[in-house]
Formats: sequence, C-alpha cells, structure tokens
Amino acid sequence: MNRNTLVEQIKAKKSFLCVGLDTEKTRIPKHLLNDPDPVFSFNKAIIDATADFVVAYKPNTAFYEVNGSEGWLSLEKTIDYLNKNYPDIFIIADAKRGDIGNTSTNYARAFFETLNVDAVTVAPYMGHDSVQPFLAFSGKWVVLLALTSNSGSSDFQYFADKGGETLYKTVIQRAVSWAGPDQLMFVVGATHPEELAAIRALIPDYFLLVPGVGAQGGDLTAVSKAGLNSQCGLIVNSSRAIIYASDGVDFAEKAALESQKIQQQMLLELTTAGII
Amino acid sequence: MNRNTLVEQIKAKKSFLCVGLDTEKTRIPKHLLNDPDPVFSFNKAIIDATADFVVAYKPNTAFYEVNGSEGWLSLEKTIDYLNKNYPDIFIIADAKRGDIGNTSTNYARAFFETLNVDAVTVAPYMGHDSVQPFLAFSGKWVVLLALTSNSGSSDFQYFADKGGETLYKTVIQRAVSWAGPDQLMFVVGATHPEELAAIRALIPDYFLLVPGVGAQGGDLTAVSKAGLNSQCGLIVNSSRAIIYASDGVDFAEKAALESQKIQQQMLLELTTAGII
Repeated sequence: MNRNTLVEQIKAKKSFLCVGLDTEKTRIPKHLLNDPDPVFSFNKAIIDATADFVVAYKPNTAFYEVNGSEGWLSLEKTIDYLNKNYPDIFIIADAKRGDIGNTSTNYARAFFETLNVDAVTVAPYMGHDSVQPFLAFSGKWVVLLALTSNSGSSDFQYFADKGGETLYKTVIQRAVSWAGPDQLMFVVGATHPEELAAIRALIPDYFLLVPGVGAQGGDLTAVSKAGLNSQCGLIVNSSRAIIYASDGVDFAEKAALESQKIQQQMLLELTTAGII
Repeated sequence: MNRNTLVEQIKAKKSFLCVGLDTEKTRIPKHLLNDPDPVFSFNKAIIDATADFVVAYKPNTAFYEVNGSEGWLSLEKTIDYLNKNYPDIFIIADAKRGDIGNTSTNYARAFFETLNVDAVTVAPYMGHDSVQPFLAFSGKWVVLLALTSNSGSSDFQYFADKGGETLYKTVIQRAVSWAGPDQLMFVVGATHPEELAAIRALIPDYFLLVPGVGAQGGDLTAVSKAGLNSQCGLIVNSSRAIIYASDGVDFAEKAALESQKIQQQMLLELTTAGII
C-alpha cells in the first residue's frame, strides 16, 4: 500500500487507529475454545466488528509463535482474511526482526511475500545491511524501532554521544538516509510525548507508529498534539484495551465500542488539527 | 542444558563448533526436493553426518519463516529430532527477538517450551524488560547480541558516549547485572578479533557465540587466541561453508568432512590452550 492510499483511508474513516492482534489462547472467551482454530475465530470476529473504525491491524508474531506451527497457521489465516476482505486496511507484522543481509532478505520474503503484509517492524541494532533488504520490496514498508514504549527504552535508546545526541535520534537520522517517507516509518512510544514532538520536528513527513496508548498508559490527546502532521502522519496502536474489552460472548461487540470510542476521539483530534 | 554439561561436551568431542542450519529450499540438493519435507530431510541428513564433530546446532528462524507455517513445522521437526536423538547437543534458536515484557514472555515460551531449544538469540535495543522474561526460564539461555559480524555493526554498536564507551560494551556491562554466565552468553562476530580479546578480558567467564567464520571471512585461529578461556568459553558457528559444501548427492558426506576439518583445527586450539 502506498502513502497516498493510507492517508486517504485515514481521512475517509476519520481514524488513525491500529488494533494490535496480540491474541492469547488463555484470554480468548471460553465459548470459542472448541472452534478448530480459536485464535483465528477470535481474530476474525474482532476484525469484522472493528474494521469500520480502524486503518490498520498489527498482529505481533510472539502471540502466534507461542502456539508453534499451528500458531503460524492462525497468523497466515488472519492475514489472508484481511487481504481478501479488507484490502484497503494496512497490515503491520509486529515482528521486530533484523539480521545479516542474506537472513534479513529471507525475513523480508517471509513477511512481504509468504504472509503478504504491508509493513514489518524491524530492530535497528545490527545497522544498515540488516534493514536495507526489507527496503528492496516495492510497495512495502519498514517500521523501524526508534524510541519504544517500555521502561527498558531508557537502558540503551537514551545512550548519548559526546555531543549529547541520543542513540534513538541517531537511528532516525541515519535511517532517513536509507529510505524516504514512502517506505519507512518509525516506532515512537506514546509514553514519551515530549520526545515525540521533537521527533516530529526532526522528521516532519514520516509516519510514526505509536504504541502504548491504553493498557500501557499513553494519552491520545498528548500524542496527537505532539505527533500529527498535515497528512496525519500517525498510526496509534491499541491492543489489549480493545481486544480484551470483554471476555464474554459480547467480546467483539465490546471491542467495536472501544475502538469506536477511540475513533471518535481521533475524529476530534483530526478536526482540531485541520486535517479533515 | 547447564554450563558444566556444555563444557564436558566440548572436552569430550574436542570441538566448540556450532553448525548453522540456515536451510534454503533453493540450495537443497535436487534429489531431496520430492521428499514430503525437503528442509527436514536435508537437516536430518546434515545432523546425522556432522553430530560427532559439533556441540551445537543453530537454526536461524528466517530460513523457516520464509516457508510460512510449513517452514515452522520443518523447524519443529528438526528441533524434535535433535532433542530425541542427540539430547547432549546444545540447540540455539537464532531468532534475534526482543519486545516489551508480556510479548517477550510469549517469545520465551515459544522457544523454550513449544519448540524446546536450549538458547535463543535476543536483540538488546529495547533494554532490560525485553530480555529478562527470557531469563525467567531455568536451564535455558539468552544469547544477547553485542558486536555482530556484519558491516552494519559499525552503524550503532560502536556509537560512543562522552567517555568513549561504546554501545556494545555498555550492552555487555549492563546485561551482566541481569544474569550470570550460567544463563547468559553474548554474540561477538569473528570479524572483530581485537574487540573479541577486549570483551574476553571484560567478561572472563561468559560464553561467547561467534558467527562469521567461513563464508563471512572470520579466522578460527585469531578467534581462538582472542576468545578462549579456561573452560573454552567459545561456541564458533559456521553455516553455509558446511551445509552447502556440496549441492550433490554427497552433500551430507561433504558437510561431515568440512565440519571434521574445523573440529581438527579446534582440537589443536584446545590443546594449545591447555584446555584438553
């Protein structure tokens, strides 16, 4: 999916919400557990209930790999269902991969060809030749980790050189020389609104994927103020607060209500910012 | 597997060789392609031919994920085959994972419980709470990326603070406060022998996993001189130079010869260093 299509989606749906499909078997409503593939049944119901309010879905591979090859099959079925039924919705594999060149090429093929998602999250530690193989796929996106939402982000991402420049800013500055805003986004956690504003100033045109709203405590208004650009430029993710809004038979209905609630806030933010 | 068992294996086999099972369908000998699972058939033959000369196998997940859920099944069958037939051999999932706490816990369960490997490689960018969930599994190991073998290692791993301390050293110094040498190893590429010596001086007791010998150009004697400690303390990986030593019907035989050749060099290094 190209950037224009993504921006059009955002304006049409008045939403920049991404729902994280971090589906855990232990948290699936009991009535689904007798289905042949409870994880896929759950995802399908969540997708159908929330699709009107979201522009992206983001399955995290950990929650599929924990179920082994069966889990990977649930992931394939989920992506396939999205591609067939919701071709306009952006799909991000949250995989945080990154390896030496030939290996990264195989990861890129795994996600962009075999699974067929639009974007994959990549960890920057191994440098340019671990990221560039992902950028060789036209129409596909790298979402590079910059400043993550967890407390461990303070361990190395704020590591600063003698001029006071932090590692996460150095990652951003180096990476924008590898790809433009039509191929590259950055992960910036909602738990760092001040840094988000500084990052927006540094890279006005790039999309930012912002996790950490909801269960992790980030605030949507603060994120919007700090991060919106003239084309929106934000994809804000919420996972647990939406998909586990209820553990009963009404789980999909409650997920729809939660995502609609966030979409309504986003409509307000987009209007205030003059984007729609 | 605990450290003593690993060290006993090294002394018994007079080898610290790890074979990387980076099996690509396009490089599998043609006569195997009609097997129901050519990747598993290839791995099984390579394992049976080389097991006498190696102490560890290291499948890299990229080469399995590229084949989707079928690929993940080939990986499961390979690990299962190793656990059943070669219970004394150390198994490293080269996955370079790392995510926020709850997600890393699911990755740890995926690799240590569902797949049942001994160790998993982890990327440090997201800090302590992305690594610690892996350390909660007793008898299992984290192999943390420190200084990788690729050219991109120079992009961020050498990023230095005002005192001149590099990121990769900071990663090591921070990580040794999270776990001791019975649970934690570090990846240090064979392409950096000088830094390897300095790292050995910094952490005399920790095992180092050293990729980059063979196809990537690293030198075994230089690595041994720089990295051996009194208990060996090294696991040196070779992938392509061994598993693709021949693309004919003699591929397993040639892989055995290549791994034996390296084992013979290792015997010499271990003897010279007075370890055996």
